[in-house]
Amino acid sequence: MSATHIVARLGDCGAYGVNLHDDDLVPFGSSAKARDGLVSEFKKALADAGMVVPMATTNLFSHPIFKDGAFSANDPKVRAFALQKTMNAIDLGVELGATTYVFWGGREGTEADACRDPRDGLKRMRDALDYLCEYVKDRCYDLRFALEAKPNEPRGDIYLPTTGHMLHFISTLANHEMVGVNPEVAHETMSGLSFAHAVAQAMEAGKLFHIDLNAQRIGRYDQDLRFGSEDVRQAFLLVRLLEGTTGTPRYEGPRHFDAHAYRTEDEDGVWEFARGCMRTYKILHARARAFDADPEVRALTAQVGNRELDPLLARYTPAKATKLRAVRIDVDATAKRGLGYERLDQLMMEHLLGARSA
Amino acid sequence: MSATHIVARLGDCGAYGVNLHDDDLVPFGSSAKARDGLVSEFKKALADAGMVVPMATTNLFSHPIFKDGAFSANDPKVRAFALQKTMNAIDLGVELGATTYVFWGGREGTEADACRDPRDGLKRMRDALDYLCEYVKDRCYDLRFALEAKPNEPRGDIYLPTTGHMLHFISTLANHEMVGVNPEVAHETMSGLSFAHAVAQAMEAGKLFHIDLNAQRIGRYDQDLRFGSEDVRQAFLLVRLLEGTTGTPRYEGPRHFDAHAYRTEDEDGVWEFARGCMRTYKILHARARAFDADPEVRALTAQVGNRELDPLLARYTPAKATKLRAVRIDVDATAKRGLGYERLDQLMMEHLLGARSA
Amino acid sequence: MSATHIVARLGDCGAYGVNLHDDDLVPFGSSAKARDGLVSEFKKALADAGMVVPMATTNLFSHPIFKDGAFSANDPKVRAFALQKTMNAIDLGVELGATTYVFWGGREGTEADACRDPRDGLKRMRDALDYLCEYVKDRCYDLRFALEAKPNEPRGDIYLPTTGHMLHFISTLANHEMVGVNPEVAHETMSGLSFAHAVAQAMEAGKLFHIDLNAQRIGRYDQDLRFGSEDVRQAFLLVRLLEGTTGTPRYEGPRHFDAHAYRTEDEDGVWEFARGCMRTYKILHARARAFDADPEVRALTAQVGNRELDPLLARYTPAKATKLRAVRIDVDATAKRGLGYERLDQLMMEHLLGARSA
Amino acid sequence: MSATHIVARLGDCGAYGVNLHDDDLVPFGSSAKARDGLVSEFKKALADAGMVVPMATTNLFSHPIFKDGAFSANDPKVRAFALQKTMNAIDLGVELGATTYVFWGGREGTEADACRDPRDGLKRMRDALDYLCEYVKDRCYDLRFALEAKPNEPRGDIYLPTTGHMLHFISTLANHEMVGVNPEVAHETMSGLSFAHAVAQAMEAGKLFHIDLNAQRIGRYDQDLRFGSEDVRQAFLLVRLLEGTTGTPRYEGPRHFDAHAYRTEDEDGVWEFARGCMRTYKILHARARAFDADPEVRALTAQVGNRELDPLLARYTPAKATKLRAVRIDVDATAKRGLGYERLDQLMMEHLLGARSA
Repeated sequence: MSATHIVARLGDCGAYGVNLHDDDLVPFGSSAKARDGLVSEFKKALADAGMVVPMATTNLFSHPIFKDGAFSANDPKVRAFALQKTMNAIDLGVELGATTYVFWGGREGTEADACRDPRDGLKRMRDALDYLCEYVKDRCYDLRFALEAKPNEPRGDIYLPTTGHMLHFISTLANHEMVGVNPEVAHETMSGLSFAHAVAQAMEAGKLFHIDLNAQRIGRYDQDLRFGSEDVRQAFLLVRLLEGTTGTPRYEGPRHFDAHAYRTEDEDGVWEFARGCMRTYKILHARARAFDADPEVRALTAQVGNRELDPLLARYTPAKATKLRAVRIDVDATAKRGLGYERLDQLMMEHLLGARSA
Repeated sequence: MSATHIVARLGDCGAYGVNLHDDDLVPFGSSAKARDGLVSEFKKALADAGMVVPMATTNLFSHPIFKDGAFSANDPKVRAFALQKTMNAIDLGVELGATTYVFWGGREGTEADACRDPRDGLKRMRDALDYLCEYVKDRCYDLRFALEAKPNEPRGDIYLPTTGHMLHFISTLANHEMVGVNPEVAHETMSGLSFAHAVAQAMEAGKLFHIDLNAQRIGRYDQDLRFGSEDVRQAFLLVRLLEGTTGTPRYEGPRHFDAHAYRTEDEDGVWEFARGCMRTYKILHARARAFDADPEVRALTAQVGNRELDPLLARYTPAKATKLRAVRIDVDATAKRGLGYERLDQLMMEHLLGARSA
Repeated sequence: MSATHIVARLGDCGAYGVNLHDDDLVPFGSSAKARDGLVSEFKKALADAGMVVPMATTNLFSHPIFKDGAFSANDPKVRAFALQKTMNAIDLGVELGATTYVFWGGREGTEADACRDPRDGLKRMRDALDYLCEYVKDRCYDLRFALEAKPNEPRGDIYLPTTGHMLHFISTLANHEMVGVNPEVAHETMSGLSFAHAVAQAMEAGKLFHIDLNAQRIGRYDQDLRFGSEDVRQAFLLVRLLEGTTGTPRYEGPRHFDAHAYRTEDEDGVWEFARGCMRTYKILHARARAFDADPEVRALTAQVGNRELDPLLARYTPAKATKLRAVRIDVDATAKRGLGYERLDQLMMEHLLGARSA
Repeated sequence: MSATHIVARLGDCGAYGVNLHDDDLVPFGSSAKARDGLVSEFKKALADAGMVVPMATTNLFSHPIFKDGAFSANDPKVRAFALQKTMNAIDLGVELGATTYVFWGGREGTEADACRDPRDGLKRMRDALDYLCEYVKDRCYDLRFALEAKPNEPRGDIYLPTTGHMLHFISTLANHEMVGVNPEVAHETMSGLSFAHAVAQAMEAGKLFHIDLNAQRIGRYDQDLRFGSEDVRQAFLLVRLLEGTTGTPRYEGPRHFDAHAYRTEDEDGVWEFARGCMRTYKILHARARAFDADPEVRALTAQVGNRELDPLLARYTPAKATKLRAVRIDVDATAKRGLGYERLDQLMMEHLLGARSA
């Protein structure tokens, strides 16, 4: 399908934006003239559909030149080409209005691990990100970077395999304040880790710049299924977190459905799929709202303070420590108290299933 | 087995130290007098065996008071008790000579995820670590903290599930310079992630303070098998990294075998197991040395620079970027070049198997 | 909790039966007199609560005598003891009215795989099952066997790790007609396989004799969570299959909730947990019924025959094959047709979430 | 690379045969004339290289006509076409000398599981296999079928996901004696199951007709790595089983390396990869031979009988059962005995690493 057609149909489905993958709009190796033609046609389609390009990204994984990685490749020529391609794609993204730039290093990794010290891989990736941050600042672009982790596929082991590893890597960048993460449900779920916890860690650090929504079963190839179609419990926990239905600030960035329809579908099926992603998100939002408004849930999740202990736990002083050590905790009584978590979790499942009786 | 007996026998096996788990030496709830007796008996055993206590830790997971977590528990009384217990155990560890203090938060997590906002869990863990860092500084102890991640078991999802997540968490601590990680082979391998890459990331950040060596198959309960008995390839890559056989600085901290013998064994079998851990480590060290000294390996892994490109890639300036964008990379030629990684990896396996022909 | 108490409370929750684990009623090593006292007390509790014992089983895994396996152990004394214990427990189960006898060989496996040829392990397990089938026939007991698979934990690798392997093993038994399977959600899910497919294979073979319901995440320790609390999609597919809401015969055996409450709970929480299992089962049953009655679903899942082809595909004859080879299939047209599976699956999720709009 | 070229080079590497994938030799949709030309050219190449075609197979997964499965597809036209294609490919395979025919049903599965009752999927696959067995018998072909399992990829869940499920399915076929399995290291390992145990179960049942050798990490996309390059411990256990180094009959069928070189390689690298597969197999064979000849290993693995018990355990009679129940087993003594498995396993690892000291 052409870019124009996709943009028009996505608009019909109620999408507010579309993300830009450089090679998808301008095929690898296009001439400058061909590029300009494709870009202006695409801009027109966006304007007609009333849509925006919130995010752009570079394909640094499909072409065989990236077979040893892009930013981390052993060959300086590959690293040079990766920077060239990214600077061009950043220019293009900014021209189309993107304010977030995603990096997914699909080839930054190894099968034959002896090919390079993994620390050199990390250093080179840091060099590249530092370089590109400076480029953006130099050009005065209004653009933030969002790094996307994945544990494996197409490489045996990709460097910085989870959002946690990526968050740490970001903390070592020269311009770390302009770099955040773009967690993807499928990528994080592959390792069997809690996606909601990863997103929470990113949010708590102020680093959730973008998010890729889809579905995945643990321990498998990258499935990119329709949002909410697998592990709907985690999907519920995620939407609850993003929408802040407990009263916390909601996530303000784009909710990007980065999934693809089953291979069994024709074009109609593809649009059913797109509608399904959005519809399930909305259902889960409503379910989360009802759950967090349920008085029994509120009672079970109320965080109870302790007038004596809370000040002693807050910030260390020698005096507080002395007092704290003198407090006598009734270990057995505290240990014995039931916490009501089975009831709480069952209530959550009943809300999720639309079966909470009044 | 009594602490005295274990210390004596470990000395016979060639171990240089033994780690201290507070409850293992001083049972939960012991009187002060009982504690002092046990401690002085243990000190004597150490002196007799010529062994040290390089590392100490607190058990914050076995007693039911920690069923909802220790530092992250909802009940302030639990958090208060966890701090009390840890301060006592730190005092004990320092008294016995420990310079590294390990935290494994086995109960810091959830099954019923709605019981608390995961961000509150992280905040409370940060508060506790900040508090304890101040305590150590206040007491002028010569002690560093090493945090140990685990994805699950005994909880459904433990917070900060991998070394990557933990490294990021450390970067948010007030006294982050005195806190590092204690990666464990089994814990990291459960999620199917590359253990060598996680350790490399910690080393590159100067954060590998301690390491727990054992073996594990991916996607299973915590096995804690004899070091090197599963995934000997990863074990080889790990030893190579720790010992710096490629010429990089070696890891200077303790190599702690945190494994346990099969349930089929009697006491003799347990000591066979302990000897096996150490013997395999030494074999792998020898194999790594031979591999990295092999001229064919050196040729295949030599990192070739590029006089024109290297300076352009190093640190961004507008002028360098202009030059870099003007360089014409021969994409097809670069993409086509074979990298010899199958040969390299096969050489690694042949060295590992002791089968590299002269 | 005593057996009497449990039986009374389970009756209150609406359970119709309770399963018998030999050691749970009669502790390992009890005298004959003690046994008889416990048994008659238990019988009375059952009668009072109007409950039955549909299934019984032997504990062949907790005592250290089984550390190398029970039926597959290398030591003939262990195998002899396992048969003795099982014959006793079969007698007890039959006395209490059990008509299904479950075998879970928790220790039949290895860590150190060289300890025995795995084929010897299988042969010994076959010998034991053949022996016990003959015992049951000899005693004229009205009893069938149900074998329960598990991939690992507490052993590194348990023999016959999935329901599929177990079904094949059964096909090699002398009295295979009296032996079926007891699939457990958690055990099968650990390997990431579709539980519904495994149950379907057993049902199609007439071998689903019993089922253990709980919940589990893929690639983890054995969690035994509250039924439906994880992977509610698979739970829905399972209930749909068991209840035959598409019009197929429903499974007539017991639905056994083999789960346990979180460690955070007191006794009230345990009963909340028990009620939650049953309640979620009923909700999913209602959801499956509504899904399969939905006209749009019926249209999408209608299996369309082909008057010309169906007879040619049915049973081979040379004449049919000649005709079949002569049929010209329009490959492109057939390949191109959209199958509507995204719509179908989204409808399933909306029914599951109680959100199917009229 | 052309078929002729591949055959010539494989001959140089020491391979004795090459397997036939119908579409690889004769592209999908070729005319009868084109087919005959390609076939006669291929026959000549085989004769020149002194190679044979031991195995042939049909591609029933790449073309979009198979997007809903081949033998299990809902559309009878697809099932008809799959039978046509397979009969043609069987004819071709037999013409080239194949005596084993492999079936890998890469598309026989689902993502949207409600699309068909999984029992109907199994029934249709049984109908197809029964049909094709009759076809082979009718044509008097000297050909056996080998079924290859895989848990997922390219489908969400493939029916009959492991060798165990497949073995059971075979037991339900009308001509089950002419059908066996073709286990593949990568496919079985994806689920984290012991490959050696699966192969042992097939061998014990006389059903190991073919085997696909490669390497894989647990819980990932299908990696098809160089044989022995991952999980060399399992590879050792496998070779030991296939070669019968403990004194059991060796597997007589083909050892098929079904792997592919890293994407980083040029043609030289591909041949390094092919040589590496064979070389590692030979090294592991030598290691297994030495291990099983080691007197200490022989002592540790000797299976000790029991003159009194062995006859009582063998085949049930009421008299034997009475005697067996009367035998007094010393439970504590039996439980306490150490089994020496840590020593045994360490010896295995030291043999594997070529480090067993004399």
